[in-house]
Amino acid sequence: MQIAVLIFDRLTALDAIGPYEVLSRLPGAAITFVADRRGPVRSDTGRLTLLAEATIDDVPRPDVLLVPGGPGEVAVRAGERSLAWVRSAHETSTWTTSVCTGSLILATAGVLNGKRATSHWLALDQLASLGALPQRERVVVDGKIVTAAGVSAGIDMALTLAGLIAGEEVAQLIQLAIEYDPRPPFSAGSPASAPERVVARLQAISRFA
Amino acid sequence: MQIAVLIFDRLTALDAIGPYEVLSRLPGAAITFVADRRGPVRSDTGRLTLLAEATIDDVPRPDVLLVPGGPGEVAVRAGERSLAWVRSAHETSTWTTSVCTGSLILATAGVLNGKRATSHWLALDQLASLGALPQRERVVVDGKIVTAAGVSAGIDMALTLAGLIAGEEVAQLIQLAIEYDPRPPFSAGSPASAPERVVARLQAISRFA
Repeated sequence: MQIAVLIFDRLTALDAIGPYEVLSRLPGAAITFVADRRGPVRSDTGRLTLLAEATIDDVPRPDVLLVPGGPGEVAVRAGERSLAWVRSAHETSTWTTSVCTGSLILATAGVLNGKRATSHWLALDQLASLGALPQRERVVVDGKIVTAAGVSAGIDMALTLAGLIAGEEVAQLIQLAIEYDPRPPFSAGSPASAPERVVARLQAISRFA
Repeated sequence: MQIAVLIFDRLTALDAIGPYEVLSRLPGAAITFVADRRGPVRSDTGRLTLLAEATIDDVPRPDVLLVPGGPGEVAVRAGERSLAWVRSAHETSTWTTSVCTGSLILATAGVLNGKRATSHWLALDQLASLGALPQRERVVVDGKIVTAAGVSAGIDMALTLAGLIAGEEVAQLIQLAIEYDPRPPFSAGSPASAPERVVARLQAISRFA
């Protein structure tokens, strides 16, 4: 099973690495980080570099396609090359997935027209404007399309997907291996639970404001 | 505030990237991935390469020291160079932290003698044999030492640390920015909650068995 993770400059690293840590543990999985060119890809903080070890042309028909988000999604959506790859890979994929604002890339590629999908909570309006039916949920499955909410939601998405691909017990083995028994020290992970002041502060500095 | 994340071949990527995603968002934080030499570092799956953009010698006195785990910890503990750096960096650090079996590296460096600490649930016995006082907790704070349980626990550890460093509201802002409102699809994240059969299967293939 070939899994392609699209990476690009100014991606949010955890969007990609959370699901990678889960999906790479699936029996028979071969996961590859791909970009429009081989070589270094710099994350949104400017402090982390991942290597793309293959180009998108090297992996035209992955079984699973995973698109992370981050501020670099804007440049990806402004170019045609990666969008054409997403569109084409989706035609033959078993699963097409995204994390955070990666769903804006899927939507711009035309993959989410009329589909239920999610994104970072700050980006749901933009997701709607691109033709998807946005859902305020952590993980949304619509047919073969699986989308996750912001950043850390990719871990929940990947465990859900692992269960769909390999069954519940394999997914549970992976969950136990990565000791995913979350205990957030604060209750501020969603706009519904966070203090109003915290929500307002984040909205004020959001690029989606 | 200088944050150094020690990386090494065969590390578990999420151990490092989970906390990176949180701590890099702290006001005034400059986070650097360091290794015993500059250049590519391959993760435990063999499918992901991170770049170390500085050597440990370039960052001798970080304010925050973070040591991830993964099977590569064995080789790190067998060499003297990184251990000497950990020992020396700990002398002047404000916070010394680890995720997963990164605590075995801290312990081998002599930093955890008589200290309460945690590790991946499969590695707690080994942590005890190295002189620490192992705790079955997700995040353990003992003075300036903050250790996390397996892999994904690094996110909880980093949010805890973010609160200690910058206050609760900043930590909550980061939590909301990465939408950390976890919803694991299965209840199998700890040996206490996972089905017995799943625990037994993982114990059977563990390198700590």
